[in-house]
Amino acid sequence: MGEGTEDPGPVKVGSIDHVALAVPDLDSAISFFLENFSAEVSEAVTLAEQSVRIAFVRLANADIELMEPLSRDSPVGRFLDRNPEGGLHHICLATDDASSAHAASAARGLRPLNIPTPGYHGRPLFFLHPKSTLGTLVEIEESEQETEDA
Amino acid sequence: MGEGTEDPGPVKVGSIDHVALAVPDLDSAISFFLENFSAEVSEAVTLAEQSVRIAFVRLANADIELMEPLSRDSPVGRFLDRNPEGGLHHICLATDDASSAHAASAARGLRPLNIPTPGYHGRPLFFLHPKSTLGTLVEIEESEQETEDA
Repeated sequence: MGEGTEDPGPVKVGSIDHVALAVPDLDSAISFFLENFSAEVSEAVTLAEQSVRIAFVRLANADIELMEPLSRDSPVGRFLDRNPEGGLHHICLATDDASSAHAASAARGLRPLNIPTPGYHGRPLFFLHPKSTLGTLVEIEESEQETEDA
Repeated sequence: MGEGTEDPGPVKVGSIDHVALAVPDLDSAISFFLENFSAEVSEAVTLAEQSVRIAFVRLANADIELMEPLSRDSPVGRFLDRNPEGGLHHICLATDDASSAHAASAARGLRPLNIPTPGYHGRPLFFLHPKSTLGTLVEIEESEQETEDA
């Protein structure tokens, strides 16, 4: 609509897509949720390029992602060095256009850690450095359903 | 349906109600979300008995709760001592009956930190000790809408 320097506006976000927990043992974490809570859990899958094994606890409006590092020399591995029992790792917000959200983030001084890249679900996503987001690692993932419950 | 010692089954949970962030300055955190993201933020309110000021970032399917401690000698104050910039503090899951969820939690070896007590929204809620929940502080809050989007 105009000059390249025009303010792209705020980062457009809709739903919380998921909340991610780092866990030291994915199979134990899956069993923990299946045994203690009325929730379904997805199959475990390995994402070698992100050095994690993950599974999703399916709640009514969003997921809890469980992440086990494949090596200690990885972001989730280092998180577990600091928090050996595991803990809250990041929050993922849905957007309708990851490229626009990435540009808006950069223009507002938030610090994208990567350009939008397809993730496990095939949808482009990127992360914002927690130093730019109140100490919380924020993932922004493109979704067609960011304002509708799935 | 039977003996008092009968297994009450798993803890019944539906939606993610909110994800809570501890922040050192609530007004700054509210401005941060209003300026950078396309989200509404509620008025700030003081919960003296919990020693916090809070506000809610309204997303399409759930909220982000922002919590500033009223004193350093409080749970959120001590969290900020360890994480001065703030960070992910807890996750809140909705249940349709807090008393049943509390009994089920205790029966399964999860460690409720309190008996269900009305919170800001007037609905009974309790917390589970993170040592019993994979290192993550979990709040369970009664809701009439745990399986429906509001």
